[in-house]
Amino acid sequence: MPVVLLTGFEPFGGQTVNPSWQAVQRLAAAWDGPAELVTLELPVDFRTAGPALAEAVERSQPDLVVAVGQAGGRPDVTVERVAINVDDARIPDNGGFSPVDEPVVPGGPAAYFATLPVKACVAAMTAAGVPASVSQTAGTFVCNHVFYQVMHELAGRSAGGPVARGGFVHVPFTPEQAAGTRHPSMTLDVITAGLDTIVRTSLSTGVDLRVTGGTTH
Amino acid sequence: MPVVLLTGFEPFGGQTVNPSWQAVQRLAAAWDGPAELVTLELPVDFRTAGPALAEAVERSQPDLVVAVGQAGGRPDVTVERVAINVDDARIPDNGGFSPVDEPVVPGGPAAYFATLPVKACVAAMTAAGVPASVSQTAGTFVCNHVFYQVMHELAGRSAGGPVARGGFVHVPFTPEQAAGTRHPSMTLDVITAGLDTIVRTSLSTGVDLRVTGGTTH
Amino acid sequence: MPVVLLTGFEPFGGQTVNPSWQAVQRLAAAWDGPAELVTLELPVDFRTAGPALAEAVERSQPDLVVAVGQAGGRPDVTVERVAINVDDARIPDNGGFSPVDEPVVPGGPAAYFATLPVKACVAAMTAAGVPASVSQTAGTFVCNHVFYQVMHELAGRSAGGPVARGGFVHVPFTPEQAAGTRHPSMTLDVITAGLDTIVRTSLSTGVDLRVTGGTTH
Amino acid sequence: MPVVLLTGFEPFGGQTVNPSWQAVQRLAAAWDGPAELVTLELPVDFRTAGPALAEAVERSQPDLVVAVGQAGGRPDVTVERVAINVDDARIPDNGGFSPVDEPVVPGGPAAYFATLPVKACVAAMTAAGVPASVSQTAGTFVCNHVFYQVMHELAGRSAGGPVARGGFVHVPFTPEQAAGTRHPSMTLDVITAGLDTIVRTSLSTGVDLRVTGGTTH
Repeated sequence: MPVVLLTGFEPFGGQTVNPSWQAVQRLAAAWDGPAELVTLELPVDFRTAGPALAEAVERSQPDLVVAVGQAGGRPDVTVERVAINVDDARIPDNGGFSPVDEPVVPGGPAAYFATLPVKACVAAMTAAGVPASVSQTAGTFVCNHVFYQVMHELAGRSAGGPVARGGFVHVPFTPEQAAGTRHPSMTLDVITAGLDTIVRTSLSTGVDLRVTGGTTH
Repeated sequence: MPVVLLTGFEPFGGQTVNPSWQAVQRLAAAWDGPAELVTLELPVDFRTAGPALAEAVERSQPDLVVAVGQAGGRPDVTVERVAINVDDARIPDNGGFSPVDEPVVPGGPAAYFATLPVKACVAAMTAAGVPASVSQTAGTFVCNHVFYQVMHELAGRSAGGPVARGGFVHVPFTPEQAAGTRHPSMTLDVITAGLDTIVRTSLSTGVDLRVTGGTTH
Repeated sequence: MPVVLLTGFEPFGGQTVNPSWQAVQRLAAAWDGPAELVTLELPVDFRTAGPALAEAVERSQPDLVVAVGQAGGRPDVTVERVAINVDDARIPDNGGFSPVDEPVVPGGPAAYFATLPVKACVAAMTAAGVPASVSQTAGTFVCNHVFYQVMHELAGRSAGGPVARGGFVHVPFTPEQAAGTRHPSMTLDVITAGLDTIVRTSLSTGVDLRVTGGTTH
Repeated sequence: MPVVLLTGFEPFGGQTVNPSWQAVQRLAAAWDGPAELVTLELPVDFRTAGPALAEAVERSQPDLVVAVGQAGGRPDVTVERVAINVDDARIPDNGGFSPVDEPVVPGGPAAYFATLPVKACVAAMTAAGVPASVSQTAGTFVCNHVFYQVMHELAGRSAGGPVARGGFVHVPFTPEQAAGTRHPSMTLDVITAGLDTIVRTSLSTGVDLRVTGGTTH
């Protein structure tokens, strides 16, 4: 049975919850799919998130890694296309650290593309009534940092052995978080259905769909 | 026991459902509050929506009228502050009619303010975790038209008797409608919780809250 | 020769300039149209803006009044359709006053429609390459307050005499104001061209165009 | 005297002009800075834009390459941080070609970072009153394609010789393009001032500023 490592984040930015970790827990509690799910809550911390992720990969030896983070203000579940090798923090992380234009991995490649079937995941969520789209940027904060670390870790391990797939998914605020703001929101039920669809689609899709998910700018 | 008339709309604009009527039906099915609920599905039709509404008011003699409509693209439940005496259709209604700058009621006042406790409704929804805000415009399509008709009807009936309250509420697309677009969405569960809160708050609030719900422009 | 009263506002909300007054001054400096232009800078103050406006109307006896205000965040020149009889301040005015849900004019009608040829103004600006649209709400701050006062003043004076036209126009931030934010902007040249078009169109248009400027919500 | 290659694009997407090329021409006509400016209009064509760019680089041997493109809908001048090795066309290019998930350069790195002083350029524009920001994605259309080609070309030429700097800048619609839509706009004067600032800043800045230009997602 394949092993799936699913990560969410702790709260940050003044929030008391993080829907990424809430939804990961929900999915794990209800999971009955064709894989073993391993879950992990990551710190919103540039310095400790990467080692925690690497340690979990080492321990669980996953075939698939889906890291999930909160993107407050986005209206839909976004499957990220590319992680870039830069940390540029607009706000401090939970450890009070604000790197500016430093590499995630010194000497690492400028970027990694997700190896999830990004287009198939978006198409499957759309068919299931879950608002979703491809995103061309995961930002430059801890989400992009972890996304890059995931891909870097999997790239390093793939040499000579079977290749594990990985990627990153951003999810909206929940209604409880959005109440009192005018941000869009999505219930944990819908977010969890989206993550369930992403995991199942990634397990069952060999070759990604050739449909556009691009933007002109 | 007070009587509450709650209306939703039929689908329009290429949609196959209208969350306003879906949520009104859900609320009615689960309703256990201190009032009798009467529901009505209105046509998205400038010429027939008003008479249908008036007939229902005549029949049910409501103490409270809450008309609900779909505002695709808005992220939250919006309680409308004011109805204006103009029809200006950017798209044809379901009857193919596109009035431009015609009065809803010839000779009627330029506008009516909602007589719901607008601020208390928004505050109660926010406290309940339902994203909500005050809206300063209900547009110039059939929603505003019906809102104006509701207030005109209630104003006419109030002479010499007890005054019924009325207002209008716009709700977002559901996830199923928003999937494949990048519009924000809200599940029927959350929308229905919002309507439930609005009805209960309107029944129990004598004097509205004095909190701002304004905009600088 | 007809008399046109053109008003702008002083800065507010932490800004050091207000493009409405800057553009009014520019227009006046370059004006060569078929009317006498009288200009006035109004305070962003609920209590003193109305009397200042009324005094200027009394003094200049205008045939046309166009009040102009700043709408930071809007991308285009918006011609307002309707002024509503409510003050609801989200931020204090320059006098520190924050009315909530108080009438602009106690006992006044719920709203006044602009008597400018709103659609013709928008069409003429669009044809001239000035981004413009109809707005269904002027908000609930000092701009709406002054707009309501203008229309109330003109309605009161029209009894028994020739009717003066009036309305309100919102303009975007300038590039200098928007720099460092991600707000849209418009140069004073373009804003001034828009105001010039509005004044000339209002002077020369007897019957407004029957083209839609509506919204579905 | 250093040589600067400045490129714009031909119109696309139903437009009759492209402000990127209009502004490049304006800048060249008024240029009095400490460099020789070479300009080039590129086709919006995945198959021919790259060779045209490479030929111009070969011919002019630039010390600095700034490619400029139109980003209709963005409110400000955006300096792009990263080019990614993927073509994913949401609309066909001017040659009718719509690649989906194909590499810009087969076997090329996943991404290149701009070697312009991105933060210094944004800071200088902001100080000059030109709305500007850092962008984390240039999209997946011909703009990103050319940006990637620029960086790939310069990377290839840098081996063993002095390193030329390069990058990509997106500019908004002009008011003439935006009129009749509700898109934000920027006059050619302001766009040209922005490009002038970028070229001068890139020529005079050795080490980029360490200020944030990041996003949380």
